[in-house]
Amino acid sequence: MSGHGSRTWFFPDGDIPPPGEHEPFGHESLIMLNPNDDDAEVVLTLYFEDRDPHVLPPLAVEARRVRCLTLSDPIDGYRIPLGQYALRLESTVPLVCQIGRMDIRQPNLAYYTVLGHPVD
Amino acid sequence: MSGHGSRTWFFPDGDIPPPGEHEPFGHESLIMLNPNDDDAEVVLTLYFEDRDPHVLPPLAVEARRVRCLTLSDPIDGYRIPLGQYALRLESTVPLVCQIGRMDIRQPNLAYYTVLGHPVD
Amino acid sequence: MSGHGSRTWFFPDGDIPPPGEHEPFGHESLIMLNPNDDDAEVVLTLYFEDRDPHVLPPLAVEARRVRCLTLSDPIDGYRIPLGQYALRLESTVPLVCQIGRMDIRQPNLAYYTVLGHPVD
Amino acid sequence: MSGHGSRTWFFPDGDIPPPGEHEPFGHESLIMLNPNDDDAEVVLTLYFEDRDPHVLPPLAVEARRVRCLTLSDPIDGYRIPLGQYALRLESTVPLVCQIGRMDIRQPNLAYYTVLGHPVD
Repeated sequence: MSGHGSRTWFFPDGDIPPPGEHEPFGHESLIMLNPNDDDAEVVLTLYFEDRDPHVLPPLAVEARRVRCLTLSDPIDGYRIPLGQYALRLESTVPLVCQIGRMDIRQPNLAYYTVLGHPVD
Repeated sequence: MSGHGSRTWFFPDGDIPPPGEHEPFGHESLIMLNPNDDDAEVVLTLYFEDRDPHVLPPLAVEARRVRCLTLSDPIDGYRIPLGQYALRLESTVPLVCQIGRMDIRQPNLAYYTVLGHPVD
Repeated sequence: MSGHGSRTWFFPDGDIPPPGEHEPFGHESLIMLNPNDDDAEVVLTLYFEDRDPHVLPPLAVEARRVRCLTLSDPIDGYRIPLGQYALRLESTVPLVCQIGRMDIRQPNLAYYTVLGHPVD
Repeated sequence: MSGHGSRTWFFPDGDIPPPGEHEPFGHESLIMLNPNDDDAEVVLTLYFEDRDPHVLPPLAVEARRVRCLTLSDPIDGYRIPLGQYALRLESTVPLVCQIGRMDIRQPNLAYYTVLGHPVD
């Protein structure tokens, strides 16, 4: 159950961008790399400015795979509301995680990305 | 008083962008996630190139909430001057913090972001 | 064999951008700094969403040099496929590593960059 | 001599952008925050792809000040050549450091930034 990466990651600044009307569509994504030999079960907790956190159903990230979760699409039927949110990721297996946003609310796209803040 | 995150964060590169004349307005923001069970009291210190630091009155970040502080708006009546500045954040409770800038001084926006540098 | 930097780096979010038809061409690059006094031998492992990892032949990064590897060009005859991928770097000598993307799929370029996540 | 920050920082990906012909001019900057009570003496080492490192004369960063060094301007009479370079910063006092690039080679600017990789 040991391996490279961390089991807990925080992303303070989430904000779903407008999708726009043509490709490439505006979106926000969470990228989870599992470089280890065990499949991971991942629980995401969403934090908001003015209400209690929301916990999403567990997701799988297979061993030796990268998974890109589009946060601007419904996740298991749940749609992240517009506006400021933050994210905690807890995994049964160490992962390496990054968040990326593509904003296309003008003719040209803009990127916004950080590696998460890893804990233990 | 323990928990995920750090009590001290540094942001070396602050620079309030011009707001422009239409939405989305240019701005700079500090995003503070408190994933823990105690409310946090936060003290921000501003550093400049050519004068002594300025300490802002304490701010609150509630337990299990994210707070987005718009640095380009007045904070408790204080307006951060234009030009280079840096930021130290000290919190009574561990937080996870990020700074983001949206620059719209041309027809299309540009993003600039980093997680802070955490200490203890 | 000791020195500044780390021997293992992870980059969760790789995605080769379209090159476009004029300079500056869209590209993705891995920048490897070897500030130490021994030459480094580097092995890159590529991770994908739906198939097993691919290991590239060893590369050299000379002592006291920086090397920029263009990931959007063939590497030793291997072309990274389009779509999501992730990267693990393992080096015989500690390095400091960063990934950068220039996206030019609109009239203006956009940048996307992170330092890698260092391990041991 | 103790304090917040690190005495050694690495920036793998430096690349002076074209200045362009109007404001805001393209530039690359190193931002050094000294939040401590002692003045810092800083030595910068430049690394290249194909020749030996170049060491710049010492610079000062005063106590409780932030200093922004424009890397695209001559530094003590030395002009960083165009193309890939990397940077090591060594300070007598702990600092917190970030690099930022503004690229204006198209009608709209693009930003590129990372905190450095801190060591000891």
